[in-house]
Amino acid sequence: MEPNLNIQAEQAPRWNVYDANCPTRLVLNRIADKWTVLVVSSLEHGTKRFSTLQREIGGVSQKMLTQTLRGLERDGLVSRTIYPTVPPKVEYTLTPLGHTLVGLVDAVRVWSEQHIEDVIRAQTAYDVLSNDN
Amino acid sequence: MEPNLNIQAEQAPRWNVYDANCPTRLVLNRIADKWTVLVVSSLEHGTKRFSTLQREIGGVSQKMLTQTLRGLERDGLVSRTIYPTVPPKVEYTLTPLGHTLVGLVDAVRVWSEQHIEDVIRAQTAYDVLSNDN
Repeated sequence: MEPNLNIQAEQAPRWNVYDANCPTRLVLNRIADKWTVLVVSSLEHGTKRFSTLQREIGGVSQKMLTQTLRGLERDGLVSRTIYPTVPPKVEYTLTPLGHTLVGLVDAVRVWSEQHIEDVIRAQTAYDVLSNDN
Repeated sequence: MEPNLNIQAEQAPRWNVYDANCPTRLVLNRIADKWTVLVVSSLEHGTKRFSTLQREIGGVSQKMLTQTLRGLERDGLVSRTIYPTVPPKVEYTLTPLGHTLVGLVDAVRVWSEQHIEDVIRAQTAYDVLSNDN
């Protein structure tokens, strides 16, 4: 599907994530990502420095956090401010577009926390059955 | 964080996706995944065969679809039914737990489709600035 920002709305569906060539697939790929969920959730309550994000998000490598923030910045979801101090202070904040994601990523995070026991039970049952066969 | 299904609720927060060792991180990893979003959305309206899913979800390889379905089955989100025909017919359906995800993954999919133009605009601006510097 070719991106064409001038198509009329009545020609919808214009965008379709099921189409591998539709640009929405790239957006889906960005937001359906655990690091995106954790970064956006973490920035929900305000601006943070790189080092704060890295400390808060357990297990994220410097490279992965840099890559995630760069992607979010390019997609217009996060803005980066550099203060000309020595050493330079760099802060990240959600843009208005990024804020439209907050409810969604919070829901993903909360679902994980709320349903973990059901999932662990299912995994245990599955593994027992797999070992029996 | 050790999984312990007997801790009392008042000891919350028991689960924390920000902790790399918390089992919820694995669940987050499963559901914050583009193939999970597409498979769960696709199964929302009923049972489907493997070949139907593969046809509907553009760009998914047989290996990736198998792996995604196997993971969803192990997590108790999708059930698999094998009919003893020749060749065997295999069908996938959302479990009740899987249905609790539908609203969420639909929202992720819809966000991607609704905000793609904002994202494309942001990407274009970012790339122009990057080339200027």
